[in-house]
Amino acid sequence: MSLIVCKFGGTSVASPERIRNVAKRLIRRKQEGHQVVAVVSAMGKTTDELVGLAAAVNPNPPTREMDRLLSTGEQVSMSLLAMAIEARGYSAMSFTGRQAGIVTDNTHNKAKIVSVDSKRILDALDAGYIPVVAGFQGIDANGDITTLGRGGSDTTAVAVAWGINADVCEIYSDVDGVYSADPRVCPHARKLDEISYDDMLEMSAAGSGVLQMRAVEFARKFNVVIHSRSAFSDAEGTYVKEGCDMMEEAVITGIAHDTSEVKVTVRGVPDATGVAAKVFSALAGNAVNTDMIIQNISDEGFTDISFTCPAGDLARAKETLSRVVPEIKAREVDIDESIAKVSLVGTGMKSTPGVAARAFTTLGEAGINILAISTSPIRLSVVVDAGQAAEAVRQLHTAFGLDSEDVFEETQLSAEEIAAKMNKGR
Amino acid sequence: MSLIVCKFGGTSVASPERIRNVAKRLIRRKQEGHQVVAVVSAMGKTTDELVGLAAAVNPNPPTREMDRLLSTGEQVSMSLLAMAIEARGYSAMSFTGRQAGIVTDNTHNKAKIVSVDSKRILDALDAGYIPVVAGFQGIDANGDITTLGRGGSDTTAVAVAWGINADVCEIYSDVDGVYSADPRVCPHARKLDEISYDDMLEMSAAGSGVLQMRAVEFARKFNVVIHSRSAFSDAEGTYVKEGCDMMEEAVITGIAHDTSEVKVTVRGVPDATGVAAKVFSALAGNAVNTDMIIQNISDEGFTDISFTCPAGDLARAKETLSRVVPEIKAREVDIDESIAKVSLVGTGMKSTPGVAARAFTTLGEAGINILAISTSPIRLSVVVDAGQAAEAVRQLHTAFGLDSEDVFEETQLSAEEIAAKMNKGR
Repeated sequence: MSLIVCKFGGTSVASPERIRNVAKRLIRRKQEGHQVVAVVSAMGKTTDELVGLAAAVNPNPPTREMDRLLSTGEQVSMSLLAMAIEARGYSAMSFTGRQAGIVTDNTHNKAKIVSVDSKRILDALDAGYIPVVAGFQGIDANGDITTLGRGGSDTTAVAVAWGINADVCEIYSDVDGVYSADPRVCPHARKLDEISYDDMLEMSAAGSGVLQMRAVEFARKFNVVIHSRSAFSDAEGTYVKEGCDMMEEAVITGIAHDTSEVKVTVRGVPDATGVAAKVFSALAGNAVNTDMIIQNISDEGFTDISFTCPAGDLARAKETLSRVVPEIKAREVDIDESIAKVSLVGTGMKSTPGVAARAFTTLGEAGINILAISTSPIRLSVVVDAGQAAEAVRQLHTAFGLDSEDVFEETQLSAEEIAAKMNKGR
Repeated sequence: MSLIVCKFGGTSVASPERIRNVAKRLIRRKQEGHQVVAVVSAMGKTTDELVGLAAAVNPNPPTREMDRLLSTGEQVSMSLLAMAIEARGYSAMSFTGRQAGIVTDNTHNKAKIVSVDSKRILDALDAGYIPVVAGFQGIDANGDITTLGRGGSDTTAVAVAWGINADVCEIYSDVDGVYSADPRVCPHARKLDEISYDDMLEMSAAGSGVLQMRAVEFARKFNVVIHSRSAFSDAEGTYVKEGCDMMEEAVITGIAHDTSEVKVTVRGVPDATGVAAKVFSALAGNAVNTDMIIQNISDEGFTDISFTCPAGDLARAKETLSRVVPEIKAREVDIDESIAKVSLVGTGMKSTPGVAARAFTTLGEAGINILAISTSPIRLSVVVDAGQAAEAVRQLHTAFGLDSEDVFEETQLSAEEIAAKMNKGR
């Protein structure tokens, strides 16, 4: 018998029917002999609707009240799931963040967990209940409700798993695990049986939306095993854990892509000391998260500076540059919203020379132009035209020996559909 | 400067725009020099929607989880109202039932208040905040969330008013006070400047939907002055308080009517000892709230027994009688769903003989047939055909000298519309 945490996201609890299915699933896990704790997100689009209501009464709502408002979403789904379990003759008890002992700092809207006291959950387990915990929320030292921000419910699940010393934290979603590439753009993608925390973090950072980085970071820090699996099938998914059981490590674990960024180029920048610093200080001061930065070689005293940033930061970037560009006497600003970042990820990369060369050659032979490059010890990212992103993923997947013999039949998505899919909520 | 509680119902907070209006109203009260505490219901139909979701996952949801689910409705409106107040530059702080110190027994779904500790609200007032309290909810001794059932938010408001020793508890709604009769059926109805607790309770019990009986009972017990007034105008409403400032008490305070009951007649009942007891014990055992009971004089050993009950209890009444009628060898059951109860209410009635005679004469001369009669020391109720209810109210209103010289221009409602209006929620 093992002790497991099962986390279900907003899509899995979006309707009464789906909540009933989640209840069935939890009961089946219990019937298999496990002790089970559920963690749930808010139903479907509830959080967006609450944010909309708040914006309609106050364009800049106080964060304390915002957290009190948003936390109701998970309270609704936790109660409904507990009821659905009881309807099938099993005992269930719902827990708010407060009751689940999730104590955070007081940074409303993006609180960090400072301690977890799972005594009440363990007591409920001992008494035969299936505890159902509201994700995404906690309380601060003053007893005020806080929310954990993006990725909050996954993080709650991992924190509860740590708190009760669970054998595994199962995170159910509409994908059945972590793939060597997005199967919607790469028909030969393989589902990974397991992946290390480091690789998973790089994959998430590079645009693989399966697990929230923050939850993976928490899991790595406290050595919690995550099992990412499908809410709609019983197939095993992907285990995220320390190290790797394979004898020989693959050089590349997977290929991620991300179409949620845009490229901004400042042209005709005078090549003088401190100019780049001025640009990027101003951007940082206006909360623009610049990702990759490229500066061309100077030509007659002028240069071009490009950077990528999330599409959501573009308005702030434009506003910042409209002030800075005249100041530094640059010529103009170009925006390219049609780009994609494609990343090779693998801890094996550290000990294998030539990965970059092979990647560039592969893309060059396929006629794909590289607009920018950035690297980490276990990741190589290139920016390409969005229209060539899928082809780049497929070519690299083949070149690095990742192709499966099975071919995915699923309909391939357009760049827009992929972008929409990538920008999904917590 | 006075200390006031302002309670706003679901209709008053049904949309962001209305919530902004409530915020303006509260701020105006504060600008007038008052200390203000708000109490709110859930937005519009929220509670009904949550009940529907629960029913969809569990036809018989556990009451503890039901309370946890329903309490989210008021948590949403309290946060939004606090945000709306802050948007106008005033400080506000929301309070759940727990934080407002509303402690109840553990009868989930219809908990009774056992104590009120308003220290946190008083502290917030001292610190310059407008406290916004979630109505309808409390916690039991175990710290579990409870809800107060029908009339809960009005009761919260009165309890908070008592807890902070407020000068008055203002209950805002879509009517501008208590009237001598429903102005929609009686164009000469007068708004009462004040009414005693006793008269108000009888009016409420007799179908006047302005205030919830339970809140009035609480107010009477702890001597809290209620001011029932319009959410949409600044006009003074009706004060509900002990005694009456008038030199001479009116015989009749007002005329209430109620179209939410049905009449059930069991025909051909053998006139034997214990038969009526058998019928009404069975009905009580099946949670049918019988109101008025009439038994005809026996005719050749058989009699008819009639009673009225809420329309919502009719299905249970039919089911009960289908078992009892064969057992007592009665002939048949007749249902009349088209009835109305019209009640004269007034503490002055106690000391004035002849009220019943005048009422019966008035109705008789107007050709209105009386189907049943019941009385209390300060109330006289008659059951009439629903189609004649409005005429009965108008005739009695004139006969007992209640007519105002002003005439209401408002469209008169049909019996169905009145019935719908009467059955409104908490």
